Amino acid sequence: MRYYRVPDETIKRLPIYLRRAIRLSEGQVKCVSSKELASLLGVTPWQIRKDLSYFGGFGTRGVGYNVENLVSHIREILRLDVVRKAALVGVGNLGSAILAFPGFRSYWLEIAAAFDIDKRKVGKKRNGLVVEDVALLGTLKERRIDMGIIAVPDDAAQNIADDLIKAGVKAILNFAPRYIEVPKRVKVITIDIALYLACLPYYVPSK
Amino acid sequence: MRYYRVPDETIKRLPIYLRRAIRLSEGQVKCVSSKELASLLGVTPWQIRKDLSYFGGFGTRGVGYNVENLVSHIREILRLDVVRKAALVGVGNLGSAILAFPGFRSYWLEIAAAFDIDKRKVGKKRNGLVVEDVALLGTLKERRIDMGIIAVPDDAAQNIADDLIKAGVKAILNFAPRYIEVPKRVKVITIDIALYLACLPYYVPSK
Repeated sequence: MRYYRVPDETIKRLPIYLRRAIRLSEGQVKCVSSKELASLLGVTPWQIRKDLSYFGGFGTRGVGYNVENLVSHIREILRLDVVRKAALVGVGNLGSAILAFPGFRSYWLEIAAAFDIDKRKVGKKRNGLVVEDVALLGTLKERRIDMGIIAVPDDAAQNIADDLIKAGVKAILNFAPRYIEVPKRVKVITIDIALYLACLPYYVPSK
Repeated sequence: MRYYRVPDETIKRLPIYLRRAIRLSEGQVKCVSSKELASLLGVTPWQIRKDLSYFGGFGTRGVGYNVENLVSHIREILRLDVVRKAALVGVGNLGSAILAFPGFRSYWLEIAAAFDIDKRKVGKKRNGLVVEDVALLGTLKERRIDMGIIAVPDDAAQNIADDLIKAGVKAILNFAPRYIEVPKRVKVITIDIALYLACLPYYVPSK
C-alpha cells in the first residue's frame, strides 16, 4: 500500500518513532501515550499524533499506543517489515564509516554489497563484505538489491546514480553535495553534510 | 539579529538557496526569479518565497531577486557573513571524511581543530590539521571556536557534547545515532545516517 499526500518530513520522523518503540518493547513496556513518546524524543505530542494520523492513527484516546502495534504498523508503513538490501558505492573514508555503522540492523536494513572503482580496494574485505568492482553494478538486479548508497566524489555521483538506476535501483541515499537527476519513479535523499553545518551559526547567539 | 518563529525546515533550505545563488553570481547572472531558482533546486517557487518572507522577503514582484543581494542577505541571516570555525571530535573514518569534505569553504565554514582520544592519531596531520588530544577540548574557548562536530562512537557522544559545551561551544552537529541532552541555549543538529536509509524503502513501490 502506498499512502498519499504524506509529507516527506513525516516519513523522516517515522524511523525515530520506530526506534524508540522498539526500545520500549525491549524494555517490556506495553503501552505508551503520545505525551510520553514525545517527551522521550523532544517533539510535541501533537506532532506524533498528526504524523500517525496520515496512516489512520492507531492509538486509543486516553490510553495511548500499544507498543507492539506501533512497531509493527510503522515497520509496515516504511516497508521495513522484511530485510531491505542496499548497495554501497565508494569505499573511501565515508563509505567505510557507513559500512561500519551499527545503526542499520535495528531497522532490518542490510548493506549487502560494496563497490569501488579503485582496483587496490576491489577484492579486499570490509566489515565482512568483499569490495566489488564498480563495473559489476549491473548484477544488482538479479541479486534483488534495490537501494543504493552513493559515497563517491562529487563529479562521479551522477554517473554512478545512472548506473544504479540501470541496474534496477529505485531509491538512492546520496552523500555527494550535488543535485542528482533521476527519473520520477526513483527517490533520492541527499545528505549534504556542509548544508547542515551551514545551518548551525544561525543558532549561535551574537556576542 | 535573531528572527522569531522561523521553522527549522526553512533554515535548512537557506544554505541550498545560498549555494545556488553563489553559483549564479559566479556565472555573472544578475537577477533570478523564484520560478527559475525553484526549477534549479527541485522545490516550488511558493516555497522559496515563503521561506524568504520570514526575513522580510527581498525580491521585486515580477522581476525576481537581485543575485548579489540574495547572497549577502542569506549569508547575513545564517550568520555566515564571517568565517565560522568548528572543531571536529573523532578522527575515525567518518571524521576523516568530514575533514576532507570539499563543501565547507563555499559556506565560509572552517574546521579549525580536530581531536581524538587515540594517542596514535594525536600529533598526526590530517588535511592540514594536527590532531589534538581530546583532553585539550577546553582550549576551544580562547581560540574562539564555538561550533562542534561529534563523530565519535555512540557511547562517547554525550560526554564529548558535555565537554564541548563546557568549552563554550554553542552549536553541535552530531553524527552519533542517539539523542544528546544539552542546555536549552545550545543547538544540536543530529545527522543519523540509519534514519535516512530507513526512509528509503517507503519510496520503493511494491512489486
